[in-house]
Amino acid sequence: MADSDIESLIELMARLPGLGPRSARRAVLHLIKKRGQLLTPLADAMAKVGATARECVNCGNIGTEEICAICTDDRRATGELCVVEDVADLWAMERSKIFKGRYHVLGGTLSALDQVGPEDLRIPQIAERIDREGISEIILALGATIDGQTTAHVIADEVDGRDVRLTTLAQGVPVGGELDYLDDGTITAALNARKSF
Amino acid sequence: MADSDIESLIELMARLPGLGPRSARRAVLHLIKKRGQLLTPLADAMAKVGATARECVNCGNIGTEEICAICTDDRRATGELCVVEDVADLWAMERSKIFKGRYHVLGGTLSALDQVGPEDLRIPQIAERIDREGISEIILALGATIDGQTTAHVIADEVDGRDVRLTTLAQGVPVGGELDYLDDGTITAALNARKSF
Ligand SMILES: [Zn+2]
Ligand SMILES: [Zn+2]
Repeated sequence: MADSDIESLIELMARLPGLGPRSARRAVLHLIKKRGQLLTPLADAMAKVGATARECVNCGNIGTEEICAICTDDRRATGELCVVEDVADLWAMERSKIFKGRYHVLGGTLSALDQVGPEDLRIPQIAERIDREGISEIILALGATIDGQTTAHVIADEVDGRDVRLTTLAQGVPVGGELDYLDDGTITAALNARKSF
Repeated sequence: MADSDIESLIELMARLPGLGPRSARRAVLHLIKKRGQLLTPLADAMAKVGATARECVNCGNIGTEEICAICTDDRRATGELCVVEDVADLWAMERSKIFKGRYHVLGGTLSALDQVGPEDLRIPQIAERIDREGISEIILALGATIDGQTTAHVIADEVDGRDVRLTTLAQGVPVGGELDYLDDGTITAALNARKSF
């Protein structure tokens, strides 16, 4: 049997999404073979991120400061606010390089099944940001799922009465699809063809 | 875009077998969300294994000492030596809990295509171990692949003339299959039904 430190490492690796026990064992053997090039740098990178990573108090993005680099970048004060479900979606938007405004990361979607209500997400903060940051357009870049669309409607109700244009990604988001699975070109097309909500 | 430390971590994670860029991003977000329970323990476990893991000079198993715990365990001096391709296969054998002898990890199989010759594997050391450890049976637990069977024949030639019984795993190893994919029950059946080679 493997040494107990190796066993512990395998067990921790198996808790990563997409890795089961078998692929965790394979990954750990690979790491041990590539100790110098991979295992030690990975341990260092994890320790560094573990010590510094935090959620931006303004938008929910992950960075190393109280306010993230996007929120503090004045060039991104375009009046456009892109609402996404999670940070993976923000990263997907950024990879498409077409959006120049700021983000608002909800931290999930409303879900009756999983008992996720508006108070569990960053929904109330959207109205505050409209007032404080002079937002003129909110782009709801949510998944084309039932929960995503429910969330979009709740946000629309929440900001009702404010002078803000609400749009959603249009062309290209497949029904039932999640944003993070889309290629950059599809995101670009969906953003360019966005329509009023 | 993600912070550069997070980018570095994603890039390193994407080099693990079984993880591409997308699953590496998902894994890193999961790690950041579970900082206390997962990211920090994982960083610590990796640092520990990186500092201590080494190949057993006798059998090629991975452990923390010059000679591994299996090689130093006198209860495992049964005279049976199980030859496997890599450490993952040794772990698979150990999970089946049926084999009580020692191992010899080749570190691969002979391959004309990949230019792996006997000198690249731990084949010459098998004869030395027969003499030194009083081995009476060698169980060739190699994959039922062409390279695995070629390797088995080369080992048979290598130990020819010594008073040692050569056996191979029999029933249960699927043609073209690799040992590490098998469930414990199949390995148990294959070991129990082993036949002379
Ligand atoms: Zn921010
Ligand atoms: Zn050993």
